[in-house]
Amino acid sequence: MSDLVSLDAVYDARDRIREVVIRTPLVRPSRDGDRATAVKPESLQPTGAFKLRGAYNAVAALDVGRRRAGVVAHSSGNHGRAVAWAARAFGVPAVVVTPDDAPAVKVDGMRALGAELIFVAGEPIEPAEQVAAERGATLIRPYDAEAVIAGQGTVGVEIAEDAPDVEVVLVPVGGGGLISGVALAVAELCPKAKVIGVEPELAADASESLASGRLVEWTGGRARRTIADGLRSSRLGELPWAHVQRYVHEIVTVTEDEIRAAMRTLALDYRLVAEPSGAVAPAAAFHHDAELPPGRTVAIVSGGNVEPGVLAEVLGAR
Amino acid sequence: MSDLVSLDAVYDARDRIREVVIRTPLVRPSRDGDRATAVKPESLQPTGAFKLRGAYNAVAALDVGRRRAGVVAHSSGNHGRAVAWAARAFGVPAVVVTPDDAPAVKVDGMRALGAELIFVAGEPIEPAEQVAAERGATLIRPYDAEAVIAGQGTVGVEIAEDAPDVEVVLVPVGGGGLISGVALAVAELCPKAKVIGVEPELAADASESLASGRLVEWTGGRARRTIADGLRSSRLGELPWAHVQRYVHEIVTVTEDEIRAAMRTLALDYRLVAEPSGAVAPAAAFHHDAELPPGRTVAIVSGGNVEPGVLAEVLGAR
Repeated sequence: MSDLVSLDAVYDARDRIREVVIRTPLVRPSRDGDRATAVKPESLQPTGAFKLRGAYNAVAALDVGRRRAGVVAHSSGNHGRAVAWAARAFGVPAVVVTPDDAPAVKVDGMRALGAELIFVAGEPIEPAEQVAAERGATLIRPYDAEAVIAGQGTVGVEIAEDAPDVEVVLVPVGGGGLISGVALAVAELCPKAKVIGVEPELAADASESLASGRLVEWTGGRARRTIADGLRSSRLGELPWAHVQRYVHEIVTVTEDEIRAAMRTLALDYRLVAEPSGAVAPAAAFHHDAELPPGRTVAIVSGGNVEPGVLAEVLGAR
Repeated sequence: MSDLVSLDAVYDARDRIREVVIRTPLVRPSRDGDRATAVKPESLQPTGAFKLRGAYNAVAALDVGRRRAGVVAHSSGNHGRAVAWAARAFGVPAVVVTPDDAPAVKVDGMRALGAELIFVAGEPIEPAEQVAAERGATLIRPYDAEAVIAGQGTVGVEIAEDAPDVEVVLVPVGGGGLISGVALAVAELCPKAKVIGVEPELAADASESLASGRLVEWTGGRARRTIADGLRSSRLGELPWAHVQRYVHEIVTVTEDEIRAAMRTLALDYRLVAEPSGAVAPAAAFHHDAELPPGRTVAIVSGGNVEPGVLAEVLGAR
């Protein structure tokens, strides 16, 4: 098993990112439901998603010479945007290799930050490794890296500070970077709380993995059908998988309709714009109450970079 | 001239409200515009608007016996909701006298908090005074009261802490409670910053007042035409008027179309749901750049309690 990330590494990350990342508050609903879930709106970060925490930590942790040679990412959007943002902050070049079906709003965001974009059909990982090797730049992996997991773990530290009596923490699962960091921090700081992953039914590879005890991959683009474009990865990373096995209580799944309904509830009851992936964890609280352990609940809204048409459709339809 | 509220009173308010009010972060756009305006999303408060700061401070400052006899408010929504929330927190009864054209979303919010509602046609002030007298309860005025202005001033203290180099602070103006508290705090803590009020063109009584040097009233419901239902008051309160004359640099106005466009920009670039009144101050930054002093700008998003249909319409229309 890979070495797990330590809480000390999370606190180091916190010191590195303090000046650039928003300390997001816990937001409570204006109408109380069955489970008065508080949400943590990572959608309010400067790049519109939690990814800035891990990416900035990883870029800041490079030594000056390595950093000056530039950074490379592969991403459908939010991680690429975060790496581009961090590279701009340090004045170094960034390349993002991105699937050609990435949402326009996310592609525009990366371009506006000055990143060089390379579009590929299919998995962008190998092309990104190749670009990094050719240019002598550093590949900032989206989740399978200690510095990235440590950065995402700062979300868990803040939850523990703001809600020390939390009992259930709901976290969306794609490649597993966010849940790894959050779960390790919560396990140390709030040992009575249960960390629960949430996935779209249409991208439930991690749920299958945890249930079966072996790392399952959803091949052939099967995970790409969900509206939650940030969670379309075909399997957990190796390092996240080690954290999920060690720290995560269970992984529940939500339907596409529940994701859309949760976007609507977040807009109207929490005054927050979430992208589909960002509404996945709250959707479990809103629609799967009976499946979850009881108690004080925090759900992470991972991002808010949504296509205008998708948001309008979700709000217009009842 | 009435006695102005002191910064000490604002710090006292801060101590009283600390446990119940969110310390809202400054949120920056995911795309940079001409003026990279940061916004302060008071829409994220538990009642969906800044009003909780002043109302909670006023209710918390009452002595126990007075408070036990209950509180009364007159409000089209957000102040009433805030008083109802504070009354519930202290376990005392609340009555809200509300205009019969108040938005359903706001009326529902007050009712859900257990407030007794009394609907009136026209101005609700006198009926509220009468109810308070009959029941021996305390009237919590929405803006013309020291404790309320002091509570709203905590917004200004937080801006000064998070953006000590701020140069322009944009604040929506209705009855004037928010801008009074913010302006007095900013004047003391960031004396180089200019505090600028923003009003709908269709409710520009404060703008006329400041320009003419006398307190102007827009009679006959003239200010009730704007979509910004939180800013339909016909004139500034007496105590706010004193603060506006002393501390406010100028008051600019925005059109109804600019308010709608700002709601859209807030949703897509800032990932925030604003009600029309909440989008008024950002609308000045987005659409009146040339009229404003240059420099680092913070605009207050005062609230996020919007009718679903209004939000959908704003996002659907280009």
